[in-house]
Amino acid sequence: MTSRTTIAVDKLMSLSSKVLEAAGLPPEDAAAASPVLVEADMMGIGTHGVGRLPGYCERIRIGGIAPKAEITVDRRAASLAIVDGGNALGPVVGARALEAALDIVRETGIAYVGCRNSNHFGALAPYALRACEAGFVSIMGTGASTTMPPWGGAEARIGNNPIGFAAPCSGEPHFILDMAMSVAARGKIRAAQAAGKPIPEGWAVDAHGQPTTDPSAALAGLLIPFGGHKGSGLSQAVDLLSAVLSGARFLTGVSSWVDKPEAPQGIGHFFLLIDPDRLMGRAAFQSAMDEFRNIIVGTPPADPAEPVLLPGQREQTLRARALREGITIDANLLGELRRLAGTGR
Amino acid sequence: MTSRTTIAVDKLMSLSSKVLEAAGLPPEDAAAASPVLVEADMMGIGTHGVGRLPGYCERIRIGGIAPKAEITVDRRAASLAIVDGGNALGPVVGARALEAALDIVRETGIAYVGCRNSNHFGALAPYALRACEAGFVSIMGTGASTTMPPWGGAEARIGNNPIGFAAPCSGEPHFILDMAMSVAARGKIRAAQAAGKPIPEGWAVDAHGQPTTDPSAALAGLLIPFGGHKGSGLSQAVDLLSAVLSGARFLTGVSSWVDKPEAPQGIGHFFLLIDPDRLMGRAAFQSAMDEFRNIIVGTPPADPAEPVLLPGQREQTLRARALREGITIDANLLGELRRLAGTGR
Repeated sequence: MTSRTTIAVDKLMSLSSKVLEAAGLPPEDAAAASPVLVEADMMGIGTHGVGRLPGYCERIRIGGIAPKAEITVDRRAASLAIVDGGNALGPVVGARALEAALDIVRETGIAYVGCRNSNHFGALAPYALRACEAGFVSIMGTGASTTMPPWGGAEARIGNNPIGFAAPCSGEPHFILDMAMSVAARGKIRAAQAAGKPIPEGWAVDAHGQPTTDPSAALAGLLIPFGGHKGSGLSQAVDLLSAVLSGARFLTGVSSWVDKPEAPQGIGHFFLLIDPDRLMGRAAFQSAMDEFRNIIVGTPPADPAEPVLLPGQREQTLRARALREGITIDANLLGELRRLAGTGR
Repeated sequence: MTSRTTIAVDKLMSLSSKVLEAAGLPPEDAAAASPVLVEADMMGIGTHGVGRLPGYCERIRIGGIAPKAEITVDRRAASLAIVDGGNALGPVVGARALEAALDIVRETGIAYVGCRNSNHFGALAPYALRACEAGFVSIMGTGASTTMPPWGGAEARIGNNPIGFAAPCSGEPHFILDMAMSVAARGKIRAAQAAGKPIPEGWAVDAHGQPTTDPSAALAGLLIPFGGHKGSGLSQAVDLLSAVLSGARFLTGVSSWVDKPEAPQGIGHFFLLIDPDRLMGRAAFQSAMDEFRNIIVGTPPADPAEPVLLPGQREQTLRARALREGITIDANLLGELRRLAGTGR
């Protein structure tokens, strides 16, 4: 068991930016990427938070990620753009692409922005929350290196590509669904490995295709898509929208940051935003969204002690608490970040 | 076991249109709706094929569906429209809305068309195939009456709302993912009931929330969303895109065609189309799509006798066979359709 420590949100944000600047990122890029990571920690998605910074910095150090990259936005039509990430840090590309999509949706009512030449870009939920706060309905997703077989296959040829759907209510919690395609996230298996714990049955198979509860054997093997052909198909759909439409690498073409940290991943992402103002009008939309939320959270629960939640509600409750009380993270990680930032312990 | 008979595609198409005209639909509306149903039969999705016609006609007869409805297309922005179905037959509304979306995407490169005041509109795959044949990438979905609890709930408050993702290859098979949110489709449970067979465990719970293998108990109870909170969240996301954005009824607001066949359902649908010509250009896109398909279908299979398929490939293979050899349907159903069409047996 490692020791945990609590740090205020603004202090962790500032520390994250210092780490990225020390790794060579321009201050504005560091400032764009840090909220993506820190918001994930705030929401309890620690597998996609500042714990990624040491790995990101190592990839920058060995040439896998370009610290000073030129990111271009190619407006292909009034509502369509392709962002070329120039092999920048994923959250920098993601944040820039989302801002481009927000500019477009404000102008035309709908935006599709596809990204290519990017890298692992963190969790979807922070981007989705940003889109909600700006007032837009969103669909988003990202490619990933291959860790699962397509349905019926015996070899990893699809990524655990997450998809997100979000819609703003009149206040928090907004509807934020951020889901990956495996029964369980690879990060959770890595966390079990780090903690020396077994994983539940049904999460993964080993390198010989046999079910396993050993996290190391699972990481050397394959994750299992949820819902069989459904999760498998959905992963492919995300790859089509993220990568085939934007000219990014897809399926087995995506490079793994674990196996080849020194190589650009070539990942694609997409952001699809819609402005409800242009459809139902803001008042009618918000009234419907709030009614929608009330119907879901008002469902009689199967277990009286566990109320039914809106997707993303738990994460937004944790986020509100983090804003008040700070973020609790691994003390060793905090020390490592301070070392990387060059600010000592 | 009922007896089966084979009928040519064009004959079934013509018979379907006659049935709908006899029920009061204008010939052009009947001609628009029939391919949606017959294509489903061709693809092996018999639960959403011409077998729905007797139920549709009965709902028209008792006033649940308007046979001669005014369908309006309200262009809200260059790439956005809302279709008001005027309580027309669902496949008529769906076909009209998809054509509106095709007009828009050809013009601007992207289209979102939401529908309200509609009814059960058949399977997604026929609409998705039409979008593929026109050369566009698509996301689509529809609301449905509530048959499942949201994750953690004990009461049906979400529909088994299907979502579809499709993308054209240079020829068939195209990528067509058409998936509902339950572990198994309600239609399959109805088919088991009709055949007097039990259903597998894990498909549904009875009215008391207990697991059941009795199809009648399952139909009186609740379907289970696939992937737990993931399928539950995805169902809600489809409702947001189909209904909240378009002003249709959502969640418990949707009327059931089973329990209240005489009432308008007020269902929403959506079609979101993107033109790859405006992003990567047609040649680069088609080359990437074909490579994508090759990687998937070339995956070493877990069972050497069962090659890995692209989503929708099985359905398109069945469709090609139906075009050559005709469609095999229940002989009693064919007799019933002939009776409804007024053409005798």
